[in-house]
Amino acid sequence: MTIHRPIIEILRHGTPGDRLQVKGWVRTKRSLKEFSFVEVNDGSSLSGLQVVFSADLPDYEPLSKQLTTGTAVEFKGELVASQGKNQRVELRAATVKIWGTADTETYPLQKKRHSFEFLRTIGHLRGRTNTIGAVMRVRNACATAIHQFFQERGFLWIHTPVVTASDCEGAGELFTVTNLDLENPPRTPEQNIDFSQDFFGRRAYLTVSGQLEAEIMATAFSNVYTFGPTFRAENSNTSRHLAEFWMVEPEMAFCNLQGDMDLAEAFLKHIFAYVCDRCPEDMQFFQDRIDGTVLATAEQIIHQEFARLTYTEAIALLEKSNRSFEFPVAWGLDLQSEHERYLAEDYCQRPVIVSDYPAEIKAFYMRLNDDGKTVAAMDVLAPKIGEIIGGSQREERLEGLEERITAQGLELDAYWWYLDLRRFGTVPHAGFGLGFERLVQFMTGMENIRDVIPFPRSPGNAEF
Amino acid sequence: MTIHRPIIEILRHGTPGDRLQVKGWVRTKRSLKEFSFVEVNDGSSLSGLQVVFSADLPDYEPLSKQLTTGTAVEFKGELVASQGKNQRVELRAATVKIWGTADTETYPLQKKRHSFEFLRTIGHLRGRTNTIGAVMRVRNACATAIHQFFQERGFLWIHTPVVTASDCEGAGELFTVTNLDLENPPRTPEQNIDFSQDFFGRRAYLTVSGQLEAEIMATAFSNVYTFGPTFRAENSNTSRHLAEFWMVEPEMAFCNLQGDMDLAEAFLKHIFAYVCDRCPEDMQFFQDRIDGTVLATAEQIIHQEFARLTYTEAIALLEKSNRSFEFPVAWGLDLQSEHERYLAEDYCQRPVIVSDYPAEIKAFYMRLNDDGKTVAAMDVLAPKIGEIIGGSQREERLEGLEERITAQGLELDAYWWYLDLRRFGTVPHAGFGLGFERLVQFMTGMENIRDVIPFPRSPGNAEF
Repeated sequence: MTIHRPIIEILRHGTPGDRLQVKGWVRTKRSLKEFSFVEVNDGSSLSGLQVVFSADLPDYEPLSKQLTTGTAVEFKGELVASQGKNQRVELRAATVKIWGTADTETYPLQKKRHSFEFLRTIGHLRGRTNTIGAVMRVRNACATAIHQFFQERGFLWIHTPVVTASDCEGAGELFTVTNLDLENPPRTPEQNIDFSQDFFGRRAYLTVSGQLEAEIMATAFSNVYTFGPTFRAENSNTSRHLAEFWMVEPEMAFCNLQGDMDLAEAFLKHIFAYVCDRCPEDMQFFQDRIDGTVLATAEQIIHQEFARLTYTEAIALLEKSNRSFEFPVAWGLDLQSEHERYLAEDYCQRPVIVSDYPAEIKAFYMRLNDDGKTVAAMDVLAPKIGEIIGGSQREERLEGLEERITAQGLELDAYWWYLDLRRFGTVPHAGFGLGFERLVQFMTGMENIRDVIPFPRSPGNAEF
Repeated sequence: MTIHRPIIEILRHGTPGDRLQVKGWVRTKRSLKEFSFVEVNDGSSLSGLQVVFSADLPDYEPLSKQLTTGTAVEFKGELVASQGKNQRVELRAATVKIWGTADTETYPLQKKRHSFEFLRTIGHLRGRTNTIGAVMRVRNACATAIHQFFQERGFLWIHTPVVTASDCEGAGELFTVTNLDLENPPRTPEQNIDFSQDFFGRRAYLTVSGQLEAEIMATAFSNVYTFGPTFRAENSNTSRHLAEFWMVEPEMAFCNLQGDMDLAEAFLKHIFAYVCDRCPEDMQFFQDRIDGTVLATAEQIIHQEFARLTYTEAIALLEKSNRSFEFPVAWGLDLQSEHERYLAEDYCQRPVIVSDYPAEIKAFYMRLNDDGKTVAAMDVLAPKIGEIIGGSQREERLEGLEERITAQGLELDAYWWYLDLRRFGTVPHAGFGLGFERLVQFMTGMENIRDVIPFPRSPGNAEF
């Protein structure tokens, strides 16, 4: 028993006359008097292969009865041209083997619509549905496109650590990683928990970003990217937040903000083009069933140049817009979701890259512009989605970086190695971050981020 | 300033007469009276580009003085055929820009040999050395080869969760993930820590394996693989253990142990062939400087069929060997490292796959063979390395699985969803696990596993 020929290959390249076997799970069955039509799906594509299972075959009655939704089955037979208009070929079964049945009374995935909420409670089975199946194939294609994009350009994929001793970005709440006996932890003389006796010899956390480590690697290998899990312990029970999500973070030495923006645009164009090319049936499914704009959005991303605005220009446009926004608009205040959407959806009507934000509202590592007020930061804002990518040129000047760290109330000592990168052969460098699940949402039109990751982690939820 | 042309491209494809710029860091400088030879490296290859920097250029003296090891530099000029025998082309510099200096008094990476122990203390700089540079390029090539292998065969890359509520394999010590206030945690009426008030509503851990989740996905998509970080809280301060490491775990529906072994062998052959093809200079470096057998090993993996033995055959061979082993040899006892090495190095003199181990010494999820005593498990043993891959056909029969779980003292309830996979459309399926860092060690001959991962995590160590 070796790797079988996936159904997608049979659907695409199978020729009438081929003798083959197909293995998968029954999606639907229509029984007529002289034969049954059985749709078999193996997860390789949205469409299954139609199998014609004739009443002339031995044990037709009992076997046909067992061919219920969810049953694992193996048919051998001959591929023939299909009479039906929904498929090019179908399999005329000569033999059937039932590997595992699925009781119609207890199997939760009967042929009907299920809410995504319900499907989340059966995360071990939901991959077998049309929608989650299409999501996971598109997700895989996105991931493959990301690797292809960077590898073709000579970027090294680097694995930055999940466990870290520093809250380097100061980016919100952190999960602690420990193997102390929490019921009875070791104590310091002051009666605090003695984390020096913990596994890593100090308190350790789950990472919120691999950027700072990516900067290390960029100063050795020039162009690198991370693609790994990151974490937020924020109690955000929303359709846009996960406690564990995958992030992509390229980092380029000898690159400024301009190069960073160019790369971000080329990157999104590449991913959308790749997925539309590889998963046309799945993308059509999202267009038809989930969000009637996904194909137009993909077309736009692929073919239209992104708009570019400075933050200062964006503020002026927002002030002139005569819109009544919920949040105030003024130079120095951060852009809110409603502002971002106005810029992308209404004013530009396409993705827009906003750059050069006020230093006060951005992280310490972003490079101060010559005006002394703004930093070389950029966000890619997409219609309907808002921020999809955030990036910056990094402060590569030692003194400026020290000032920014101190000004934000952070400890210089904690950044000794980050500062060393500015002491020894410092270079202009830049990078960005893309939340991978946000990208998959953007691509598919799926409303809830928990439905675009195999096993979502959120407050109160670590099942499966 | 956009993505620059990597030096490896110039070395491979540059033509005398090309006018170009090169950006990178000075590795070495030799100053003669009329010019300096500067070797510039940007991390894209082991070799740098030789730049000839003439004394005729303006400010030659002060600039040349600054071109010390580690200095970040940009040269523009014309590519010319090299007179030297170490390179095909070299750059005749017309201009130089120094981006960042590296003080010879304080920059730790002066031109001399450094011990790997010392380099680990400067993890933020060690990627700039020849050895760690070559390791990271080979590591990237291994990772790319893994994705290519599976994607070409229609496997989906699935991201299994890092945070998990179950110690599903019972595989040793776990790290706890929490955001409780550990100094003052909520308590149950019994005065235990009340993990129901923790972020995930229960006690959560870092995963030790994505296998069980991969099985979920294989029963929807047939062929899948994980490639992500996994964790062990074992206090093993050895050259072969990491607390955080990356693991690759394919899982195939409709596949038995035979198919699993075939895939594992094809997989290793593919990776070695890919890396030797893509990183010939780095591999030659490991051969010359680190381990004089790595090229022969790669040749053998690529071209020679792996040996295959059952555990029962292996025990018989070990008993007949007349070797005096430290650990006893008897049917029912696990193979120790010395036994594995005897089988691979001495008896087979090539990689060997040992299969069908006693049920008692293997995990609950492995499929019981018809003899009632052994399970459909397999380990790929490599000369010098020992176990590099471990896999099995999984127990797909509900009753047998329940018996195995109970027999190992585990709770059936914790496995409700894993058991469901056997209730609804169960299929024969199999998979294996590869420790990614072990693979990189195997490929490069590097002795210490901490030197084949960018930022190693081990007891007492979570720096960078």
